[in-house]
Amino acid sequence: MPKIAKQPVWQVSWQLTFKTTGRTLLDMKNSAKAQDTRSALIEAGIEQLSNYGYHGTGIKQILDAVNVPKGSFYNYFPSKEAFVADLLTHYIQSHLDEQDAFTANSRASPLNTLRQLFQKGIERYEAQGCQQGCLIGCLAAEIGSTKGLCQNAMKAAAHAWEERITTLIEQAQQQGEVRQDLPAAALARLVWSCWEGALLRMKLEGKVDPLQDVIDHFIDRLLAV
Amino acid sequence: MPKIAKQPVWQVSWQLTFKTTGRTLLDMKNSAKAQDTRSALIEAGIEQLSNYGYHGTGIKQILDAVNVPKGSFYNYFPSKEAFVADLLTHYIQSHLDEQDAFTANSRASPLNTLRQLFQKGIERYEAQGCQQGCLIGCLAAEIGSTKGLCQNAMKAAAHAWEERITTLIEQAQQQGEVRQDLPAAALARLVWSCWEGALLRMKLEGKVDPLQDVIDHFIDRLLAV
Repeated sequence: MPKIAKQPVWQVSWQLTFKTTGRTLLDMKNSAKAQDTRSALIEAGIEQLSNYGYHGTGIKQILDAVNVPKGSFYNYFPSKEAFVADLLTHYIQSHLDEQDAFTANSRASPLNTLRQLFQKGIERYEAQGCQQGCLIGCLAAEIGSTKGLCQNAMKAAAHAWEERITTLIEQAQQQGEVRQDLPAAALARLVWSCWEGALLRMKLEGKVDPLQDVIDHFIDRLLAV
Repeated sequence: MPKIAKQPVWQVSWQLTFKTTGRTLLDMKNSAKAQDTRSALIEAGIEQLSNYGYHGTGIKQILDAVNVPKGSFYNYFPSKEAFVADLLTHYIQSHLDEQDAFTANSRASPLNTLRQLFQKGIERYEAQGCQQGCLIGCLAAEIGSTKGLCQNAMKAAAHAWEERITTLIEQAQQQGEVRQDLPAAALARLVWSCWEGALLRMKLEGKVDPLQDVIDHFIDRLLAV
């Protein structure tokens, strides 16, 4: 399975050094404070983008949320687009890490593990009041291919998650839990689409029923043998 | 099946009448020009919103697109939110009318009619270069429940379209074309979700393959008997 790089694909760094001695006075790249600020900006960005979308989120409101002075944003990120692309990579990686840990520790069958992963998703969305969907799906709908850096990050995210689903379905097929007339990858793509569409519906209806349908009807009836 | 009102749910109207005689000098409500401008604003709005989303679309760019002077927007619509809600109702109704006409004239079986309806959708999205998804899905992702008027219009749109799918699946079940272990309405909700999620994926991938998967794998394999 391809692993999404944990580290951002680029990094802004600057150093303040004494011209005479070459001694480093301030190293922004390695400064713990800079890393903290960077992480805080990413966390605030995820929150704001989940609620207001790409165009509805201004750099200013993110800086305000973490008390970072206006103007210093570009010390951390070269552009809004690069910031969002980096944030999407961070967002998906934290979800994948969580899912991988859950799967690795699961004693349930592959199909039950898949079911439980989605059930955990339902609990998370319900705790958020059904207002925030999947950030990947929401931004795919809003900006699609118009922001190249973000599009690449979202495609990688979708593929990485789909690979996890494929592996579980493949194992479930081997154990005779899931129908075998279609390849696991094809079924995983349908599960991805169905879940993302159900998340849109959840936002409209303000309830998790469309997500529960994916488990109760799609996984348990259409996929399960 | 509930029918979405063809007429907008509200209308701004103003008349200029002579105080002495009561004769109408100008009736904005019934003026053909006003109706034309209103329709042109809605068409331009659909185009802009499909490309740039709710927050990425300004009133100014819509007015510019149809050469309507700045400031006159509020003669036609009380707010941006009301405009978008009205536009969504118009958008879905034109699609429903088209689908209803196609279904009424179809000589194919119910399942084949459903298949053909989605195939027509694929051709439309492909002709648009896979950049514009379903306006309902895209705005549901972006603004969800944050704009009450739009949310109501989107919910009504989703229900109206789902009702059409339900009816076709119900007929297909009666004719033994579709599995009968789940109610038609439950299957229709899954089809809705799967299609809307596949549209997100289409925008990311820049190709209609995820939509074709819905027909080839979901409808033809998971639903069909």
